[in-house]
Order: sequence, then structure tokens, then C-alpha cells
Amino acid sequence: MGRLNINWEREGRQAAYLELPSSTNASAWQNLRIPVFYFRGGEGPRTLLIGGSHGDEYESQVALSKLAHGLDPNVVLGSIIIIPSLNLPAALARARLSPLDGGNLNREFPGDARGTVTQRLAHFVTHELVPRVDNVVDLHSGGRTLQFLPCTFIHEQSDAARTDAFLAAAQSFGAPLTVILREDHADVMLDDVVERAGKLMLASELGGSALVTPDTVQLASDGLLRLLKHLGHLSGDHSQPMVAAPSRVVSVPGPEYYLHADDTALFEPMRELGETVQEGAVIGFYHYIDRLDRAPVPLHAPHSGLLLCTNGEALVHRDDTVAVIAADYWR
Amino acid sequence: MGRLNINWEREGRQAAYLELPSSTNASAWQNLRIPVFYFRGGEGPRTLLIGGSHGDEYESQVALSKLAHGLDPNVVLGSIIIIPSLNLPAALARARLSPLDGGNLNREFPGDARGTVTQRLAHFVTHELVPRVDNVVDLHSGGRTLQFLPCTFIHEQSDAARTDAFLAAAQSFGAPLTVILREDHADVMLDDVVERAGKLMLASELGGSALVTPDTVQLASDGLLRLLKHLGHLSGDHSQPMVAAPSRVVSVPGPEYYLHADDTALFEPMRELGETVQEGAVIGFYHYIDRLDRAPVPLHAPHSGLLLCTNGEALVHRDDTVAVIAADYWR
Amino acid sequence: MGRLNINWEREGRQAAYLELPSSTNASAWQNLRIPVFYFRGGEGPRTLLIGGSHGDEYESQVALSKLAHGLDPNVVLGSIIIIPSLNLPAALARARLSPLDGGNLNREFPGDARGTVTQRLAHFVTHELVPRVDNVVDLHSGGRTLQFLPCTFIHEQSDAARTDAFLAAAQSFGAPLTVILREDHADVMLDDVVERAGKLMLASELGGSALVTPDTVQLASDGLLRLLKHLGHLSGDHSQPMVAAPSRVVSVPGPEYYLHADDTALFEPMRELGETVQEGAVIGFYHYIDRLDRAPVPLHAPHSGLLLCTNGEALVHRDDTVAVIAADYWR
Amino acid sequence: MGRLNINWEREGRQAAYLELPSSTNASAWQNLRIPVFYFRGGEGPRTLLIGGSHGDEYESQVALSKLAHGLDPNVVLGSIIIIPSLNLPAALARARLSPLDGGNLNREFPGDARGTVTQRLAHFVTHELVPRVDNVVDLHSGGRTLQFLPCTFIHEQSDAARTDAFLAAAQSFGAPLTVILREDHADVMLDDVVERAGKLMLASELGGSALVTPDTVQLASDGLLRLLKHLGHLSGDHSQPMVAAPSRVVSVPGPEYYLHADDTALFEPMRELGETVQEGAVIGFYHYIDRLDRAPVPLHAPHSGLLLCTNGEALVHRDDTVAVIAADYWR
Amino acid sequence: MGRLNINWEREGRQAAYLELPSSTNASAWQNLRIPVFYFRGGEGPRTLLIGGSHGDEYESQVALSKLAHGLDPNVVLGSIIIIPSLNLPAALARARLSPLDGGNLNREFPGDARGTVTQRLAHFVTHELVPRVDNVVDLHSGGRTLQFLPCTFIHEQSDAARTDAFLAAAQSFGAPLTVILREDHADVMLDDVVERAGKLMLASELGGSALVTPDTVQLASDGLLRLLKHLGHLSGDHSQPMVAAPSRVVSVPGPEYYLHADDTALFEPMRELGETVQEGAVIGFYHYIDRLDRAPVPLHAPHSGLLLCTNGEALVHRDDTVAVIAADYWR
Amino acid sequence: MGRLNINWEREGRQAAYLELPSSTNASAWQNLRIPVFYFRGGEGPRTLLIGGSHGDEYESQVALSKLAHGLDPNVVLGSIIIIPSLNLPAALARARLSPLDGGNLNREFPGDARGTVTQRLAHFVTHELVPRVDNVVDLHSGGRTLQFLPCTFIHEQSDAARTDAFLAAAQSFGAPLTVILREDHADVMLDDVVERAGKLMLASELGGSALVTPDTVQLASDGLLRLLKHLGHLSGDHSQPMVAAPSRVVSVPGPEYYLHADDTALFEPMRELGETVQEGAVIGFYHYIDRLDRAPVPLHAPHSGLLLCTNGEALVHRDDTVAVIAADYWR
Repeated sequence: MGRLNINWEREGRQAAYLELPSSTNASAWQNLRIPVFYFRGGEGPRTLLIGGSHGDEYESQVALSKLAHGLDPNVVLGSIIIIPSLNLPAALARARLSPLDGGNLNREFPGDARGTVTQRLAHFVTHELVPRVDNVVDLHSGGRTLQFLPCTFIHEQSDAARTDAFLAAAQSFGAPLTVILREDHADVMLDDVVERAGKLMLASELGGSALVTPDTVQLASDGLLRLLKHLGHLSGDHSQPMVAAPSRVVSVPGPEYYLHADDTALFEPMRELGETVQEGAVIGFYHYIDRLDRAPVPLHAPHSGLLLCTNGEALVHRDDTVAVIAADYWR
Repeated sequence: MGRLNINWEREGRQAAYLELPSSTNASAWQNLRIPVFYFRGGEGPRTLLIGGSHGDEYESQVALSKLAHGLDPNVVLGSIIIIPSLNLPAALARARLSPLDGGNLNREFPGDARGTVTQRLAHFVTHELVPRVDNVVDLHSGGRTLQFLPCTFIHEQSDAARTDAFLAAAQSFGAPLTVILREDHADVMLDDVVERAGKLMLASELGGSALVTPDTVQLASDGLLRLLKHLGHLSGDHSQPMVAAPSRVVSVPGPEYYLHADDTALFEPMRELGETVQEGAVIGFYHYIDRLDRAPVPLHAPHSGLLLCTNGEALVHRDDTVAVIAADYWR
Repeated sequence: MGRLNINWEREGRQAAYLELPSSTNASAWQNLRIPVFYFRGGEGPRTLLIGGSHGDEYESQVALSKLAHGLDPNVVLGSIIIIPSLNLPAALARARLSPLDGGNLNREFPGDARGTVTQRLAHFVTHELVPRVDNVVDLHSGGRTLQFLPCTFIHEQSDAARTDAFLAAAQSFGAPLTVILREDHADVMLDDVVERAGKLMLASELGGSALVTPDTVQLASDGLLRLLKHLGHLSGDHSQPMVAAPSRVVSVPGPEYYLHADDTALFEPMRELGETVQEGAVIGFYHYIDRLDRAPVPLHAPHSGLLLCTNGEALVHRDDTVAVIAADYWR
Repeated sequence: MGRLNINWEREGRQAAYLELPSSTNASAWQNLRIPVFYFRGGEGPRTLLIGGSHGDEYESQVALSKLAHGLDPNVVLGSIIIIPSLNLPAALARARLSPLDGGNLNREFPGDARGTVTQRLAHFVTHELVPRVDNVVDLHSGGRTLQFLPCTFIHEQSDAARTDAFLAAAQSFGAPLTVILREDHADVMLDDVVERAGKLMLASELGGSALVTPDTVQLASDGLLRLLKHLGHLSGDHSQPMVAAPSRVVSVPGPEYYLHADDTALFEPMRELGETVQEGAVIGFYHYIDRLDRAPVPLHAPHSGLLLCTNGEALVHRDDTVAVIAADYWR
Repeated sequence: MGRLNINWEREGRQAAYLELPSSTNASAWQNLRIPVFYFRGGEGPRTLLIGGSHGDEYESQVALSKLAHGLDPNVVLGSIIIIPSLNLPAALARARLSPLDGGNLNREFPGDARGTVTQRLAHFVTHELVPRVDNVVDLHSGGRTLQFLPCTFIHEQSDAARTDAFLAAAQSFGAPLTVILREDHADVMLDDVVERAGKLMLASELGGSALVTPDTVQLASDGLLRLLKHLGHLSGDHSQPMVAAPSRVVSVPGPEYYLHADDTALFEPMRELGETVQEGAVIGFYHYIDRLDRAPVPLHAPHSGLLLCTNGEALVHRDDTVAVIAADYWR
Repeated sequence: MGRLNINWEREGRQAAYLELPSSTNASAWQNLRIPVFYFRGGEGPRTLLIGGSHGDEYESQVALSKLAHGLDPNVVLGSIIIIPSLNLPAALARARLSPLDGGNLNREFPGDARGTVTQRLAHFVTHELVPRVDNVVDLHSGGRTLQFLPCTFIHEQSDAARTDAFLAAAQSFGAPLTVILREDHADVMLDDVVERAGKLMLASELGGSALVTPDTVQLASDGLLRLLKHLGHLSGDHSQPMVAAPSRVVSVPGPEYYLHADDTALFEPMRELGETVQEGAVIGFYHYIDRLDRAPVPLHAPHSGLLLCTNGEALVHRDDTVAVIAADYWR
């Protein structure tokens, strides 16, 4: 139920659309086409780079678009698949979720060949792309409603050596932070598919607010080159990417490190992302702009740590995440 | 058609709702209430401070909320009216325009007592508030879809001395830029009402992207204190606001300094707001994420100047503004 | 811009559509047709009966539909125009406002022959129907979002004799309450058009919640017959309508008798409509169903009076009317 | 995929949020929180009380909110879990179905830990709450589009003794009617989960039209106390709830007792809920307000019985239920 | 409030955007741009050709796009302004009305410089373009919801000679029909502006159903050339357009020649557009697909004539136009 | 979960509603009713005729409505089930997909008794209707967004004799074209259910653009009679349907015969449906009505063949199908 006209054995650069049939009220026979780029320089490591799983996370889409159009095929070792905007309909709709079926692509794995467009897209990635690679890199960011200090994410593995390998890859990217997730999660993500297959899985959160800034794009572009170098994809002919500063390794110790709004308000963060906060410190203020009688209310840090994430839009509603605090990671 | 229970002669601080009847499918007898704060310290200058004329411009709403709740009435000279979120329904809807009638409050002046809610709100401001003051300050920012280098705005007046007075007030705010507008405009704005009445009119653009950041809020808060000091509203008892760096005075020389997208794309700005760009320099790139065959396309500066504004969301559509360039102002 | 094929001089019963051209995305040449019924029994009083000015106020629409189909033309004296569902598109859309243009018909008088459909409808009533009658009866009810103790409404007239005449007509209807409005209002209502023309104007509020109940329909049907009898429209041949109990005359003394929600909550009224409440008594409770920490909050009567109106839906939002209290009327 | 921080062994009263992660275009990391209350007075019967499975059924939500905030923990025997608004997002949206995924919570059991928010909520109830209790009480009402004479509902069980036990519990509630359902139904309801587990299952329909009235709330509150007393949850210290009149036991004999509209019309019920109607009697009238040529059309009772349910909104469309007739129950 | 960078004196072909500022929630500073083409070959007749006043009328947009890109400037005499898609936002939205403000451009003349986008667009046409020409041709078609036998339209003028001149122009186009309108209409159309200014006004209806067909485009293209030739715009160098068959002159004698649906149904036309029908003949059938008990219902022609227009979509609703019958025109 | 009150053994004509319970925000207990007609003339062939699987495909709905109301039961041999509008809610909503759940009925087979309304409808057809017949005819057309030369469709079967039988039935219908599909498809269609059960399956595409024309309805009506005759359903008493011209047998050789838009444009087809085109010939033009600088762009035929399908609406978006080319079929 998906078609991708790439010759996986051919050397050099190819570009083709992943085609998926869709059918909507506005287009009975819609042929959904998602750009895919492929670079091959002989045998070697095999890596899949994905951006735009959530449509409104644009930093990685820009960085992968630049890489797909700018990478010199002659310096590539092994094979690299680049999909800058995997959930393209969502990206074009300025939305996190697919406008075609409301699906959250990141929660539809391993997919279903007989299901919705989003499920069929997940199925294609699971069955046609993941088996062709050794490493999967899924670049996220905060999207419209969150903002992150740029960081890479890995899940802690049961095998410590494997965690070490994931961590080394994550740190090679050179983001200021590397986050190690320990939490349980339902078996619905690309990460589950990749990790269960014994492959390397790396994610990121790069900025947010449905924006791109010169800084985050630069970091993402440099980080991708550093990561590709680390994975053995770039021959010596390639100009060296800038060495990054060491990335601090943190985790989010528990659910109480996630702070949620109780009511509609403007949330004003008082600290920059990445700043260290002490338990009890004021992280920001809620402004109840519809109420005469409610002065701004401070939000205190429940634990010491560093500010990993804040709201991506000033106006927040009940249950929205307004801040996430991370702490240094100890195994 | 509007009710505001404030005693304009009473000294000290008052807080009251401006009440406007509204009637929607979801609320037959809706009593729309907009918080208004009033400070009076005897006779003296009289100023109206407005935020949130466009609902998704949140920086000024936070700064005015802080001022309304934090200003010590004992240091105030004259009278100050503060309306942090004038278009409150829009602010709560994360929207530029009023969700009640689709109205653009900033294009509905002088208003109409028999019209839509937005027109009746404009009418109230025109007929009940503007006549009570000498100065009107209307704080805008880029909203969801634009981002500005923080700046104050004035319209060039036919009387040079009056332009000077406006400029002095604008510069007292201490934003990095002061923009002088020369363009004609239809007679539909609050500015028209105020300027025609011979009063001082000052506007601003502070950030954007439907966000607030610690820096922009700090600038807006400090700028408001500096402006109030300049206008003679703060007695010596008040701790001095930080002196700001001089504000560069610019204008946008003509329509060709506004750059618009021709197609749906991700626009990646390559320059920071406020940077100087030379004619022909690359300001950013359009990334056509839905097209295999279109490499990133550079956008060149049509004229030298400094980058005043860029897009507030990464994904742009045809006709959206992606950049505005300003040039130094010469009379 | 409106067509109504009725021969105003012909005796007996006629039924015709008021036709108004409309143009929407779904119907380029839409011929909006609103049923109108006309009874004539020689010279005599002339009355216009209107229901459904707001689409979701169904009690009067049912009562007028019954009257239009059940009234024996042989007992009619003078002429009676009946429009059961004046804002028919809204009635069919379960909405207060017109789905064609968002217009609130009750705020669009005297209308505009070149304007929106709602404005053209108001214009037709003003210029084609009101001039043909001596009395106008505009039957409202609470609609989806309010509930009223059945009552008739009149505006206090500057001429006391005229107020008396209005009051006599209102009381003939036989609703439990007669409400006399003293408030100012913008010159946008049918009432303004009729009263300025020196004619008798009568309105009502009959139930609400977008419902009809056997009791309210019975009251409306009986009330209409009593009113027509009072106005001299029914000959002796007509069976006498039941005599109603005397109607209590009240007014709403001021804005503080209208109570509005401050927040989203379930509002539970503790008193039946029409009950007498003392100042400070608990009228109802707000239940904050989304909050663990907020026990039900009582709403106290700000003044003594009787409960005229409560919310028509249990879930209320900020600014919604949850209760109106009336007090006995003294000139 | 759900978190509820309650210590099931602790005596007394606890209040905690059931937390479910959600992800929407408007809130990437939304932490959906649903209030849960827990009372424990030693070993004893264990009961789960649920309101708001359909969001627009507000009577039970108010009654359970009052119980959760007003019940004295010292009189409780055994343990009681109270969830006043299980489908809280729907309740806040004035909707029957979840605004997050369109799910009908009452048709999503036993749920799915990897599914939509509604499916995960059903899964949590099935796997975390039902196993902790002996009795489940799921309080419904007519919602926006139906109105019921207050009643309790049980399904006839294959084991007569079990039906007797269910019936005894149902009748202890003291609603005017007790309805016994015999119809087959797909295996998708909470009832199926509970009954298959051999536990007591009781439902209700209490009023409707998205309203609460003093009478229905009083009945629900008293009924809950009577039911808790019946189930052995209230010690002698508790003041006795009023004894209810005996509840009439009825069933709906077959599909022809459900009456549906054929066309858009105003449906005017002519009988009060609970009235006895004879076969052929006029239950109400359809008013075709858009048609000159269609007089009101009577709806005749197809069978004798009592009027259990009518439409909750006056305007009905094709296929809407306008009346349900019940008959005395005979085994 | 509108900008169009065309040098009206320059010979040859120019292409420029008409630019109108707009402001929406999705684009704060939107620069709406509508393509305009200008041909000048010295002094001579001056004509404005407009397509797409209603967005979903595509035949003329295609024909004018072809003309604007294909017309050889060397054969042009006088000046021709071509705007293929005047209401471009509606055209791109597949809608009749503007998606920016809901405006019906064809009912907003003469426009308002301070109004909505649609009103400002009408104002620009009225004040900047109409004064520059002698003839205005506004090409319509049925749009999504109607289908016409291709025809040109004129309004009967009070001056018979002027009617003759209009008629001669209309017939030169060579559509099968020429329709002469006698009806009154509100003073809100472009036609009113043009005719009051003493200029030649010509309209058309060309096909419909939001489609273009090879035949209608060919007719429109040929008709435009014939019309331009008739108006004196084409020099002898231009290859002669095909001579058209004589166009039959008709009018729609009164409102009873417009037939409207009474209910939702599939309307099946039994006659081709342009066929002659006798009074009482069956024009088509209504199919009530939701009703078991309603056989197809014939629609009879109320008067003899020819079938000018039928429904553009098979499913019709109450008040939709399903057929228009025209009769031969007699002065 | 579905009820259909038909006595399958009774001779003659019956009409009954297929009833499916549904529950929406607008109708809590909705009884969805879909008209079904049944003709029986003793033992003999058994056929199910379906129209309106996609709601906006109206040709077959009209033809089957005419057949269901016009077929003389006395001439019928065997049994015929007719469902003119299977996805009735979509048909009434002018939509391809169900407005109740967004489901594409044609992709939901074999259905699910516990699923959405669309899934339960598919389940009913699979389990209650298909087992009662030998032949299934599912009449489609282009719907709003496509237009087809009228044709019948079959899938090539692995057993050549079976393909022959399907082909004979398809050709008996007498459409200008018969299309044989060879492509793989997911196991989600009615075709899969029927073919796997060893029964005859026939589909069609008849026109499009959400229209019906006299020609297509006539063809469909005649074709149905010819097909029923071929299948042995019409006794000699029946007047012979007109013999059709031989139907050309074609297939669509591969995905490159489907042509898709790359961008928003008006697509103008230059060829009539059914015309033969040579490789490289211009099929039509894209008109970029929003761009000054893009002249109309031709679309060339990638292969020789005949034009089977074009766009059903003039305005197309990226990924929409604008043309399909078919080639003569060779086994």
C-alpha cells in the first residue's frame, strides 16, 4: 500500500517520492507523496534520518532539507535515507497530527497495512525502511506548544553496553543536553520497533514554538554532520564538522518534574531554558488576564534541576505542560 | 452600551471590569468583562496604556499585568489607565481577531455604538477613555505570525515639533529601535482618533510568535517605567528605572522593503533580528518540503538596511510577510 | 429585495412565503422562504405576531404554528399577521443567530435593503409589515442558554397612559409575571421601530433550554387567545379562553440583579424559577468538576426579589448569565 | 498509561487526579487529569460510583460532586470510589462524546492500553478500578438530546437470583421507575465488563436536556444515599435518607416502542414524562415550521404504556428519538 | 488601500499584482496579490475583462488566463485590462464567497475603502479601474451549485439605443443565448456602477458545477475574441475568430420561472440545457433517497420556454434553485 | 447491531429500512435508517445492487431509485436486493465519506460488529446480505472530484473462466468501456469479500462531479436492465432493453498511467473523456491563476491510450488525480 521507487543498490544520490494512496472528501483518488532522499557510498553503516514525524516541528525539517540537498554523495560511506518531513500533510497544515485522519504518527507504530493513512505510513517505515538500516535517528522538537533546550534523547537499555553505544551517538551530536529516558511507555512508538530489532535509536528535541531560528538550524546541521561522522558515514574527504562542547547528561527523574497548568492563563517563564533552578525557586508566573482579583501567581520549582522545557505558546490551558525540569543522570 | 464602574476622581488604585453586552449562540446574555486598572495621584499627566488589541500579542499583556498589580499607587502622579488585554476574547482564543465577530480591533476605530462587539469596544475607548487622557500608548507585538526586534512606533506628524515630542516619548521607552511611519493609512485606527484629537500617540512591536520571553518582558516592563517617568507620572519616591541604551531611529522607506512569500514553504531566516544586511545579501532560504526537485531557494535583501521583522511561524503561505527591512531615518 | 404574495384586502385566511434572495457557497441562487399567515375579518385592529426572532426559542414557534393552523378565520375581527419562525434559518440550525450571516435579528433593526440577509429581513419587517399594523407582539424565550419563568415584557414609555395600555395588553396574556424594562438600549431593536411609530409593542420570555414543554406551550397558546381577545380580534363566536390568574408586575432594578459566572463550572440552581429569595440567600452552587481542591461554591442573592431567569445549560462559562432577580415594580 | 496516586489501604478520604497523557495539536504534552475521590472505612462492601461517562449528562455529575465533597468519611463502611465526571473533556465541551478523539466512552469497553485517550480511559477503569470493587454504579441521563423520567436501569441476568439482587439495589435508589433491559447488545459497554466479572451493575437515566434541576439533583442525591445504605456503606451514625416511594418496574418490550422522527420538525410532546398513554393516543405533534402546507402532524402511541423518554431539544431531525414507551415488566 | 504598479500609458503588455493589505489570524500582515494584465496599442477603445468575481466560476478564469498569456500585444488596439481571477482567495478556496470575510464580491459595489477586504477590492475596481475604461465585461458562470447553457447577460436600459448597443456587444460574443434582464435589483453590483457611469456593461453565465470543459472554454475563448473584435480592439493583423451562430435573445419573464426545491432530494434533470419545454412538461424528478415511501416526484414546467439553468450538484436542499426557464424576448 | 425487517421468502416487492443504532453529539439515540428494496419471483438468480457506497456518487443512486420504484415485480425471476444509497449519511452530506465517523465504506470490509457505524454497516452487508446472493453489483462514479467515461469494472480472477463470466456480465451492462483491474489491493473492499466467497462481483464508474445528467442516468438505467436480463432476472414478459453497442475492454497498465497535480492550479482538460491520445500529446493545461509569471503549463500523455478519467473539479491541489489513461486489454 506504499510505493517508493528507489534502487537501494545504486551508488550516489537518488530522490523519489514515497507514494501512499489516500481518499478524502476533497480528493477521491489522492496520491500522497512524501519526498525521500537516498545516498549510497558502497557497503558500510546504514542510517535512516527522519524529520517531521510531528508536522509542526520544523527545525529538523529545515536541517534535513539542507542536508538532503547539500550533502556531497562522494563523501558518503554506507547508505543514508533522509526523509525531511515524514508527516508531510501535518507539516503543511501547521499541525502536530495528521490532518487526514487525526493520527499521531509517533503513537501508531508498528502500523497497519489496512488502516488509516497514518497507520499505513508507520507500517511502511516499519516494514520497508527500518529493516534496511542499522541506525534510526528521529528528530523532534517542541512543536507549536513546547520549547526545548536543544537536546538528544535516548531510552535507557536493559543492556548497559547498548546504553553506552546509544549515549555515545547521542553525545556525538553535540547538543547542550543529552536526556536519558527511563520511563515505561506503551509499545506504540518507532523507538519500540527499532530497539526491539536490536538497532540504534536516537531522538532529539530541538527548539519549538513552530519556529526555526538561525541558531537551532545551525546546531541541527552541525549535529547531523557530527553524528554521521561518528556513525562512520563520512569519508576523510569531508571537511570536519566543528567539534561540539561536551553535552551534559540528564534525565527527568519522575512525573513530578513535569509541571502542568491548572487554569487558562498567560504563563511567563522567568528563567531561560538550560538555567539551573533550586527547589522552591520561582520558575515563572501565571497571569490571569481575565481576572481583576488575581495577582500574578508564581510557579515554584518542585525540585532542583535545570529547565529543560517551557511552554511554546504564552497562553496555556488546564493540563498543558508549562515546564519540565531535568536532573543530572546517575545510573 | 458599555459600563465601567470607576470613580475617575478618587485617589489611589481602582480595579473594575469594562462590561459590554454580547449575544452568541453559546451565551444569549453574555456580559463580556475586560479588566481595567486605574491609578490616580492628583492632577497631572493622564495616560492610557493598552495591551492586547490583537489577542495573540502577549508580551505587552504580561508587562501591563505586572504593572497593574505591582505599581505602587503612592508614587503615581496624575492618572494612569491600564488595560492589559483590551481584546480579551481574542487573547483567550490565541487569536489576532475577535472570536465573537471576527473583528480586527485595530481597524475598527472610531467604532460604532450600534455595531458588533468589537465596534462597540472601539467606540467605548474612543468616547469614554481617550477624552480622559493626554497620552495613549498601544503596545503591540508580532503575534503568532510575525516576530519583531523590539521597537516603538510613531507616525510622522505634519507639525515637526509634535513629531519631536512623539519621538522623545518613544525613545524614552528604550527599545533598541524606534520606527517612524510615514505611510498613508485609512482612517480606521486608534492612532487616527488620538492624533486627530491632538494627543500623544505611541505604539510598539515587542517580539512575537505568540510567545513571551524573559528578555522581552523585562524590556517591556523597564520601558514602561522609563516612559511613565518621561511623561511625569512617577514621583521621586520611585526607584529609578534602569537607563536604556539609545534607541536607533529608523523607518521603512517603501513597500518594496516588505518581503512576501510566493508559495507554501518553510522559511528559514539566516540573520538575527536587528542585524544589518547589505543589498543582495541572503536573508534566508525557502525550503519546499513537498518537492523533490526544488532545492532551497535564497531570499536576497532588495535594499540595505537592518532586519526589523521576520516570520513568526516557520511554515509560510503565499502573501505572508517573511521579512521587513528598515533603514535609518532622515527627515 | 423581499417578496410576499399576500392580498392584504382579501377576507379570510391566506398563507404565503416571504421570499428573500440569498447567496451562499452552498446555494448560489438561494430563495429563502419564510412562512407567513394572514387572517382578515374586515376592518378592525391590526396585529403582527412574531416568533423565532432568535432561532433556538421554540415555545412561541410551536404556539404560533398551532394558532396559524388552528385559528378559525370566521371568528377573526380585523387583521392578524402570523410569522411563527421569523429567523427560520436559525431555527432549523438550532441556533440563536442566523447561520447565513451570523446576524442577531433582534439587533439589526430597522434593517438595510442593501445589507446581509438578516438586515434585509429586518428591513422588510420594518417597511412592509409594521406599517400595516397597530400592535406588534414579538414572542421570545430563553433559547438554548437561558430559562425564564414565563413572562411578558414591555418597555416603560415616557407617556404614562401609553405604559398603562402596554401593561394592560401584557397582563391580558396571563403569564405569571409581567416585566417592565426601564433600561436604556441602543436603537437597534424591533421595539424601537414599533414604539417610535407610536404603536403597541409587547414581548415575552417563555421557558427556554431550546425545549418546549406541554405547560409552556399551553400557556403560550392560551395567552395568545387572551391577548387577541383583549386587542379586539376575536368575535363573540369564539369560545372564551380560560381566564388567567393575575400577573405579578416586576422589573429588574439594575445591572447588579444580573449574575454572571466567573469561570467554567456546572451551575446548580437551588431554587425554582419564580421563587422569592431574600438578600444573601443561596440561589445555587458552582461545581468545579475539573478541580479536586474546590468544593462547591454557593452563589448568594445580592438583593431580595424573585428568581426570573436561570441558566439554560448546566455547564456555564465566564460571563454567562446564571441568574436574574426581579423585584416588584413601583413607578 | 494512566496514573492515580491513591493509597487504597488508607482509611478516610482521599482526593487525587487520574492522569492520562494525551497529545493534541493544541497541547503536545497534555496531562489529562480527572478528579477521583476515595472513601474508606475498614473492610466492607466496595463500590465504584461513576458520573459523566457521556459529557453532557450533568445531573449525576452534580450529585456526585456534592457527595464527594459532602460525605462524612467517619460514617463510611467499606470503600467507595467516586468519579463525578469520568469523561471530563466531554463534560467541559458540553458534548456527549470526547472532543479529544470523538470516542463514545460507553462503547469503548474493555478499552485498549495502546489506543485513543477514550480507549485508554476505558482500559484504566476495566483493569485498575473494576477489580477493586464489588458494585459499579454508572449514572447516566438524557444528555442534550433526550429527556428521561428519572429511573434506574439493570440488565436482566441469566441467573434469576442475580437479577433479583440487581433489582433490589436498583429499587433502593428510589427513582420513580426501574427499567429492566432484555435486549442484546454488543460487548462494548462497562456493563459487559462488570457483569461478566460477576459483580453488581446498576445504571440510571436522570433527566436530560444538558440541564440540572433542583428536583433531579435532589432525587439523585437522596437516591445515592439510599443506595449506599442498601449496599451496607453507611453506618448507623448516618442520618437516615428519606424513604422513597416504591419504584415501578418496567421494560421496553421491543424496537417498535422507540419512536423516531422522519423529518426535520419541531416536536411538541403533549404528555408529561411518566404519564400513561393508551395505544393510538396522541403523544405529541410534529410542527413543520418551514412549510406553509403542512399542518401539525400528530404522533400516535403504537402501544399502550408509560412515556419514559422524549426529545431533549425541540428541533428534531430524521432518525432522532422523539419518544420511548415502557410497559410493566413481567418475567 | 490598494496598489497596482501599472503604467497606463506604456504601450505593449504589462503584468502586475493588484496588492491589498489583509490581516487574518493566520497572517497578520498579509499582502493579498491578484494578477492583472494590461495590453495597450495606442488610443482606442478601453475595456476591462473580469473573471472569477465568484471564486468557483472557473470557465472564465481559464479563458482569461489563456487570453492574458496568449494575446499578441501587437494586434491590440486601444487598451485592455484583464483580471482572470478577481476574487482570487475564493477561487483558491473552491468557494463562491471570499474566505477572508465571507463577502459576496458581486454584492459589495461600489465598495468601501475602510471596509473588509472584499469591500476594499470593490472600491478599487470602482475608483481605479472603471474610470479608465469604456466597457466592462464581467464573466460569470454557474459555480458549484448551478449549471447554465452558455449565455451573455445584459440589463435592459431605459434608453433603447443603449440597450441596442449592449445587445450588439452581447451577441457578438456568440453564445447560444443572450439574456436580457428586466428585474429591479438593489444598487450593490458592479453593473450598477458601470451603467450609471454611462459605460457598456456585459456579463455572462458559462457552464457551471465548478468545472471547466473543453467546449465551454473553447466557446469562452472564441467569444472573447469576437467581442474584442466587435469593440474595435483587434487590428486586421489578427486572424479572424470563427463566426458564431446567431444568439437567441431571451429573458426570464418573472419570479415564477425560477424553480426551487422544497426539500432535500436528488434532483434528476430530464432535459438538456437549452431544450424547449412546454408548460406542464416534466423537467426532472426529485428522488427522496432517504424515504421508503416516496416515489420519485416529477417537476413540471410552470410555463413554456427553454431550459436556461439547472442545479450544479445533484443533491439539493430546500430553497435551492433547480431550474430556470427563459422565454423569447419581446420589447 | 443492525435490523432489517424483510421476509426473504415472500414473493413480490418489499421495502424496509436497514436500521443501525448510532450515537452522536447531536443525537444520543439515533436510529440510522437506510432504504432497502426487495423483489422476489420464485427461485432463481440472486443479486444485490448497491449504489452510494461513496455518498457523492449520485448517478447510480438515481438509477437505482428509479429501478426500485419502477420495476414491475411480476417480471422478476429470482430475487433482487436494491440499496440505492448505502452510505446514506454521506449522500445527504454531499460527501464521499461518512459524516458520522469519517469512514470510507469502500475500505472498511468485512466490517466489525463492535466498531464505528461505517464498520457495522460493512459488517451487516458482509454477514447478512452477501450470503443471500450470487451476484453483487456495486455502482460507483467519480464523485465530486473525479469524472469518468461511463464504464464497468471487474478484477481479473486467477481462474480464467471466472474472469470470462465476470467480463460477460460487465459487457452486458453496455457501458462504452469495460475496465479490467489487475492491481493488487489491500483486503479491505466489498470486492474482496464477494470474490473470496466465489460470487460474481461487478463495479462501475458512471460520470462524476457530484452531478447527474440525463445521459448518464439513461445509460445506468438501461445498463441495469440489460445486466438483469443477462443474469436471468427478467422474464419474457419484460419489454426488451435496448441493445447496447459493444463495450471496449481496457485496463490501466500501471501507476504511471495515473497523472497527479504537483501544485494548486486550475486544470483545463483539452480532450473529451474517451478520446484516444498518443504518447506525448497535450491532455490539458495547468493554469496558475495566482501567479503573474507562470504561463499555462501543458500536461503530456505519458503513454498512448484513451482518456478514462479527468478531474471532477476545475481547481486541483497537489496529489490530486487529474487524468487516468487506459489501454486496450490483452490477457
